[in-house]
Amino acid sequence: MKRQWFKLPLHQLLHALHSGQASLPEIVASFYERIALRDDKIGAWQYLIDQEDYLAEYESRSDFYKASPLMGLPFAVKDVIDTAGIPTSMGSAIHQDRIPDMDASCVTAIKAAGGILMGKTVTTEFAYFQAGKTNNPHDAERTPGGSSSGSAAAVADFMVPVAFGTQTAASVIRPASYCGCTGYVGTRNEFSLRNIQPLAQSLDSLGILSNDVLDTLLLRNLLLHKPLNLAAPGTQSSSVFAMFTGQALGEVQDKMLETLQACQQDLIGQGHQCVDFPLQDSIVELTSLHAQIMAYEVARNLVYEQQHHDSLSAHVQSLIRTGLAFPYKDYIAALRRADTLKQRLLDWFEQAGADFILAPAAAGIAPCKTDGTGAPFMSRAWQLLGLPVVSLPLGYAQKMPMGLQLIGKPHQDDDLLLQALQFQQHFLSTDSVLAV
Amino acid sequence: MKRQWFKLPLHQLLHALHSGQASLPEIVASFYERIALRDDKIGAWQYLIDQEDYLAEYESRSDFYKASPLMGLPFAVKDVIDTAGIPTSMGSAIHQDRIPDMDASCVTAIKAAGGILMGKTVTTEFAYFQAGKTNNPHDAERTPGGSSSGSAAAVADFMVPVAFGTQTAASVIRPASYCGCTGYVGTRNEFSLRNIQPLAQSLDSLGILSNDVLDTLLLRNLLLHKPLNLAAPGTQSSSVFAMFTGQALGEVQDKMLETLQACQQDLIGQGHQCVDFPLQDSIVELTSLHAQIMAYEVARNLVYEQQHHDSLSAHVQSLIRTGLAFPYKDYIAALRRADTLKQRLLDWFEQAGADFILAPAAAGIAPCKTDGTGAPFMSRAWQLLGLPVVSLPLGYAQKMPMGLQLIGKPHQDDDLLLQALQFQQHFLSTDSVLAV
Repeated sequence: MKRQWFKLPLHQLLHALHSGQASLPEIVASFYERIALRDDKIGAWQYLIDQEDYLAEYESRSDFYKASPLMGLPFAVKDVIDTAGIPTSMGSAIHQDRIPDMDASCVTAIKAAGGILMGKTVTTEFAYFQAGKTNNPHDAERTPGGSSSGSAAAVADFMVPVAFGTQTAASVIRPASYCGCTGYVGTRNEFSLRNIQPLAQSLDSLGILSNDVLDTLLLRNLLLHKPLNLAAPGTQSSSVFAMFTGQALGEVQDKMLETLQACQQDLIGQGHQCVDFPLQDSIVELTSLHAQIMAYEVARNLVYEQQHHDSLSAHVQSLIRTGLAFPYKDYIAALRRADTLKQRLLDWFEQAGADFILAPAAAGIAPCKTDGTGAPFMSRAWQLLGLPVVSLPLGYAQKMPMGLQLIGKPHQDDDLLLQALQFQQHFLSTDSVLAV
Repeated sequence: MKRQWFKLPLHQLLHALHSGQASLPEIVASFYERIALRDDKIGAWQYLIDQEDYLAEYESRSDFYKASPLMGLPFAVKDVIDTAGIPTSMGSAIHQDRIPDMDASCVTAIKAAGGILMGKTVTTEFAYFQAGKTNNPHDAERTPGGSSSGSAAAVADFMVPVAFGTQTAASVIRPASYCGCTGYVGTRNEFSLRNIQPLAQSLDSLGILSNDVLDTLLLRNLLLHKPLNLAAPGTQSSSVFAMFTGQALGEVQDKMLETLQACQQDLIGQGHQCVDFPLQDSIVELTSLHAQIMAYEVARNLVYEQQHHDSLSAHVQSLIRTGLAFPYKDYIAALRRADTLKQRLLDWFEQAGADFILAPAAAGIAPCKTDGTGAPFMSRAWQLLGLPVVSLPLGYAQKMPMGLQLIGKPHQDDDLLLQALQFQQHFLSTDSVLAV
């Protein structure tokens, strides 16, 4: 019987290649079969490389690939990330024929490490709210979330082991939660965003979607050109978690709150400390500041697109209208206020001796597509603060996955991901990931 | 006798067009004649639009241009700023045939306001140290400075009224000082950098080169889509200037120090207050941190280019080597230390009641080309701090211009530019600008 290679994370596939258990073409064939079986229903891909072209690329440089860190394994990127010679349409009719002349630096870095680009994944229009064609892998009537819809769905459905997304509000963490995979957004500005089409310069981040935190760590380290060190100080036996239910921001589903409570009980049982997160008012205020800053900046980034106003969705038209009308002095006041609140949060981290904040990654399970791509309020504040965040699929309701997010301190991404790895090892068995 | 329209700043050309004193084709012809006369010697242009094509663009949409803020007047952009359909080679042989598919957002914004792109100006290789073909307009044996070499030379020599540059270390302020025009770098992150090829994400800024602060203000406001308000609070009659000679950073030419002193005397005579700038040690430390952060980030932005190692200059090769070897933890420590020093500076601004720092824009006049493009040490600290800076040509030595830079508080760019406008009105007569 054929092995289901597509179900394995990157690091296990690398092990299989190293040990000679599998050949690269065999693994690649497994992923393409999965896509053939599933993507008609899910619609995660905006542009898929032909299997023949993929293998031809591998064969043409097989010595390089065999000796490389990623050994020719596949990765996917959201369609707001430029790819040389391959259409990058940003989910917009305005750019449907756009073929960039250069790869984004994240694409180049992963290619240089021996990854092979499998294709582009569906994004909402300009990584904002207007949904693309993608359905949730667990229920085709539900949204995969946005804006990294295709990346989250493709990874969660095992069509590709890892994918890049981008997040300006909640565009990695929310779809990861809805689709049931791991989403990670790094401390702002650590990763190069060269040739990723921006939405709001104070808020944009590159994100990584995977089914295993170890894969996320691997990609992070390849992007930063630094060695993977799994014995970093973050692997401490006892951490302090600040619990934030998010109810101050909006309605949260009971099952989500139960998942958070269960997680808290378990952490305490493991010898960790859990405290209440006290700065709820700051988070509420940051959530509103985020929306202001985003509108202002989007309207000044999507300048070209305003000349094609009729080809924009009502969502984007409205955002641009709001942003153009938003006064400069209020924008600056919002940036300054965010700085003040950030300092308050960092001071609290220090005084409370807290290591992480633990919160729902979204308000609940994926809503039906007729209700849009879901609400971003669980992420806006952390995104404005530029903090590193990782979401893990830790709960289920109505057979749909739900994520909890761990929020870390600036530039302590390695500690955060190592903590997430411990969560994964403790909370997730292989049974709990999607089995179709 | 034909009017020398090319000598006028943008706002006076707009006045001439509005009042019917000149036609657009007449003005454009004046600039092209200037280029024909001068550019063989100066070499400011990497790519120049044909005059016929320029005028054809104007004629094809003359109703739009006549009603627009910039009325079809020319602007130029540095060749690291993408222009759709027009080569953007970043001063590198690796990209000599590169033709971007999209304009950078700053180009789109100025085109949308009725500016017409006249061409691309010479940049050093990837906006770093390897000089291009441009000579200083005042002495062809001397450097125009880098990296916005062509933009500064073209503007200072009146071949175009305004041009965009970029600054990561000193790439707008230094060439402005050497060439004798006005250079402005905004508070980091206010302007969209969409489709400007990045060098170091924590440091990159868009800059504006002009011969008149009013033109700079005009472009800034068009980029930010906000009204031009010349009655902002910055026009106060008495300001507090902190004087920084820069001698703590390196050798400064006597004539530059004399210019700074003369300016100080004059300011005091005008009723302003001048105090010593006390945080010299912080500036020295920031200057060194800047170089570390820049090397680390450049090495992770120029990923594609590392695959064409032999086509890189020794300067860039060395920077990448340094950056790749620079440890992540030291990079983060440098970012954190810079944050601490920034807070110290902002606290001092507050406590001292200071409005601006006044300092040399460069160590002295432009060095000979055999000595490279000049030293960036007068700018590195402010650039790392992300502060707004404007340089004005306020001194001369050996018939070469020298600039002083005014450094402002974050997001108080309008106050800074209005103060610079007062400097211009007070210190600069039309006689003091280059007359060839």
